Amino acid sequence: MPVNLTSPAAHTLLPIKGVKLGFAEAHVRKPNRKDVLVITLSEGSTVSGVFTKNQFCAAPVLLCKDHLVSNQPIRALLVNTGCANAGTGEDGMQRAGLTCEALASALDIQPKQVLPFSTGVILEPLPADKVIAGLPAAIANLKEDNWLNAAEAIMTTDIVAKGTSRQIILSGQKVTVTGISKGSGMIHPNMATMLGYIATDAAITQSALDEMIKDVVNESFNCITVDGDTSTNDSLILMATGQAKNSEIEINSTGYLAIKELITEVAIELAQAIVRDGEGATKFMTVKIEGGRDEAECRKVAYAIAHSPLIKTAFFASDPNLGRILAAIGYAGVDQLDVNALKLYLGDVLVAENGGRAAAYLEEQGSAVMKEPEILVRVDLARGNATCTIWTCDFSYDYVKINADYRS
Amino acid sequence: MPVNLTSPAAHTLLPIKGVKLGFAEAHVRKPNRKDVLVITLSEGSTVSGVFTKNQFCAAPVLLCKDHLVSNQPIRALLVNTGCANAGTGEDGMQRAGLTCEALASALDIQPKQVLPFSTGVILEPLPADKVIAGLPAAIANLKEDNWLNAAEAIMTTDIVAKGTSRQIILSGQKVTVTGISKGSGMIHPNMATMLGYIATDAAITQSALDEMIKDVVNESFNCITVDGDTSTNDSLILMATGQAKNSEIEINSTGYLAIKELITEVAIELAQAIVRDGEGATKFMTVKIEGGRDEAECRKVAYAIAHSPLIKTAFFASDPNLGRILAAIGYAGVDQLDVNALKLYLGDVLVAENGGRAAAYLEEQGSAVMKEPEILVRVDLARGNATCTIWTCDFSYDYVKINADYRS
Repeated sequence: MPVNLTSPAAHTLLPIKGVKLGFAEAHVRKPNRKDVLVITLSEGSTVSGVFTKNQFCAAPVLLCKDHLVSNQPIRALLVNTGCANAGTGEDGMQRAGLTCEALASALDIQPKQVLPFSTGVILEPLPADKVIAGLPAAIANLKEDNWLNAAEAIMTTDIVAKGTSRQIILSGQKVTVTGISKGSGMIHPNMATMLGYIATDAAITQSALDEMIKDVVNESFNCITVDGDTSTNDSLILMATGQAKNSEIEINSTGYLAIKELITEVAIELAQAIVRDGEGATKFMTVKIEGGRDEAECRKVAYAIAHSPLIKTAFFASDPNLGRILAAIGYAGVDQLDVNALKLYLGDVLVAENGGRAAAYLEEQGSAVMKEPEILVRVDLARGNATCTIWTCDFSYDYVKINADYRS
Repeated sequence: MPVNLTSPAAHTLLPIKGVKLGFAEAHVRKPNRKDVLVITLSEGSTVSGVFTKNQFCAAPVLLCKDHLVSNQPIRALLVNTGCANAGTGEDGMQRAGLTCEALASALDIQPKQVLPFSTGVILEPLPADKVIAGLPAAIANLKEDNWLNAAEAIMTTDIVAKGTSRQIILSGQKVTVTGISKGSGMIHPNMATMLGYIATDAAITQSALDEMIKDVVNESFNCITVDGDTSTNDSLILMATGQAKNSEIEINSTGYLAIKELITEVAIELAQAIVRDGEGATKFMTVKIEGGRDEAECRKVAYAIAHSPLIKTAFFASDPNLGRILAAIGYAGVDQLDVNALKLYLGDVLVAENGGRAAAYLEEQGSAVMKEPEILVRVDLARGNATCTIWTCDFSYDYVKINADYRS
C-alpha cells in the first residue's frame, strides 16, 4: 500500500483558468478504465517540457520534442495508457502522428500544436485506432474541474491518483498551480516511467518557463528512484495560461522566484507521491548525503544506497542491517573516500563512525527507526560542503509480484 | 532452487598434493554448522590474491593484502562464516589479527604467513574467541581429501556447495586444479560477496601466478552479477604447491597458457555456480554483447540489462517483456548509440531491429525461450568488434524473502 498517501479529494485539485481536461475509456489495453486523456490550453499559453534521456526514447517523446520547437503554440495534450509506443521504430512515429492529427482535426488546430504521450508496455504497436475512437468522448467532457479524473486517467500500476494544488498572490492577482503525475515502476533520476503535468494560470514568458523547468525538475523528479530503471517515456510538462492576469513573469523579474518555488513545491509533492506509491512500497526513505566535495559525488553515494536491492529488502524487513549501507557507500565510486572519517545516521541515531559501528549505538535504536514508515538515512562524507537529497522506497515481495505479472 | 546445479560428489573434488583442509563447527553465529575452515600449504607454495574494490573493505581483506606483500611465504588460510568483520574499524583489525596469531601459533608459523577471510553479516564484531576455540578441531581433521567439507564450511546463504576439479599433463607430469567458492547475494563485478579458493599442485613462480590471476578473474568472477552489490569481503586466492614436480612455470614459458586456461575453466565454473545458486535464482541468464566499440561500453550495456530489477522480474515470470531490455540498452550510457542499427536476440530469435520489434518475431517464440532455465540474451550494437559476456540470474520472491530474513 502507498506510504502515507491517498488519492486527493476532487475539490482539492483547483481548476486552472484556460486548462480543460477530458477523458475516455478507449480500451487501449484493458476495458473499463480511463485510458485516454485530452488537455486543452487557451490561446496565448506557454508550454515547456523535459524528457527522458533514455536513447530508446518513445515515439511520442520524439514528437513532443519536435512539436515544442516548431514555433506553433501548443494548444492540446493527448495521453494514453496501456501502451508506451516505445521500441516501435518508424511505425510508432506514424501511429503517434495519426493520433495528433485526429485530435488536431477535432479541435481545429494544427497537428504540431498537439503534444502526445504514451505509457505502458514497451515494444508493442500503439492501437492508434482505439485512441482515436476515444477522442470524441474525451472532448465531450472537457472541463476545468476534471483534474482528479485526469490524474486517474494516466494511472498504470499506480494504486492511487496523484495531484496537488497551491495558490499565491502575484502582482495583486491570485495565481494557482495544479499538477498531476503517475509512476510507479521504472523510476529513476533523469525522470522516471513517469508523466507529470503541471499547469498554472500565471502569465510566464516562454524563456522564463524554459529556464524554470530545469530547476524544478532537478529539485523534484530528478531526486527520486524506485528501481533504478530509466524509462523510455518520461515527460514533465509545465504549462502557463496567463489567465490570472498577473504581470507577465520574465527571467529574474518580480515574482519569478516566488512562482518557481510554488511550482517546485508542487513538483516535489508529485515526485514524492510517485515514490510513496512505488511498486510494492511499504517504506518511504529519504537519503541525505552531506559533506561531499561536490553534488555529483553526493549523488553517487545516494543512488548506490537507494538502488541496492540488499538495502531495500532490509528496509522492507525493518532490519537495521546497516552494514549493507556502509558497503554501498564503499562501492559508490567516490575517489579517495576516508571510510574512517565518514558518519552514518539512521534518523537521529549515529550508527557508524571511525570505520565501524558507533560505540554508543544500540541495535534497539536502529530497529525503532526502521519500524517507522518514513525513514531518514543520512551520511556525512566529511570532506566538503556539498549535499544532496533523494527519495526512494523499499523493495518488497509485491515489487516482484507486480513486475512479474505486469503484462498478464 | 539452484539452476542446473547440485553439490559435487566428494570424489569429484580431487586432492591437491600439498594442500590440506580442516573444518570445525565453532558456532560463530549459529550452532550445528561448519563455520571455520583451515587450509594449509606445503613449504614452497606460491600464493596470489585478488580482492574487492569496495572502499569499505573488511579487516581480513586489509590483512590479506598486507600479509601477501610481507615476503613471508603464505602457509595457511583461515576462513570463518557468520560474521564478515567489515565496518568494524581498528577493533576489527585486532580481532582478525588475533585469529591469525592463534592459527600461526598452533601451526608453528608466523602470523603473517596466515591469510584470514570472513563472510557474513557486516558491522558486527568478529567473535574471535569462538573462531580461535574452533581451531584445534579444524587442525585435527586437516587432510587432502576434505575439499567437499571445505566447500560446505564456507557456505552462507548458499544452498549447494560449489567445487570442481580439472587435470592436465604438463612436462610429463599430471597436474590437478581444484577450486571451491561461495556466493550468493551481493554479487557483482569486481568480485562479489564471494570467496574463491583455487589450488593446483603445479609449480608456478610467484610472478607468473600474480600475472595469471588477473586474467583468470577478468574472465570469470568479474563477469558475474546477482544483485549489483559489491561486497566488502570478496576474495579470490590462487595457490600453487609445486608438488606435481612439473618444470616450474614462468610467464610465457611452456605450459603457462595451458595451466592458465585450465584454472580459468575452474574459475568460470565456480563463478557460474555462484550465479546458478544466486539468492532466489530460478533462471540462469547469459548476457552477450557484441559489436561494441570497446569492451567497456559492452560491459555498460550488459550490466544495465543484468542489474535491471524490471528485467530480472520479467525473466522470473518467463515473460518476454523485451521492451524492458531495449529500455535498459537505452539508458546504459553508450554515447551516440544508434537504436535503429542494433539488434536484440533472445536465444536464436531476433526480437528487435530497426528501433522496434522485428517483423517476423512472434511472441510465442519469445515465450518458448523464456520458459527455459538457461537463457541467452544477445545484443549486437553494430558499431564495432568488441564483445563481452556476463552471467546473471533472475529476481524472484525468494530473493526478497532471503534478504529480508537474512539476519533473523
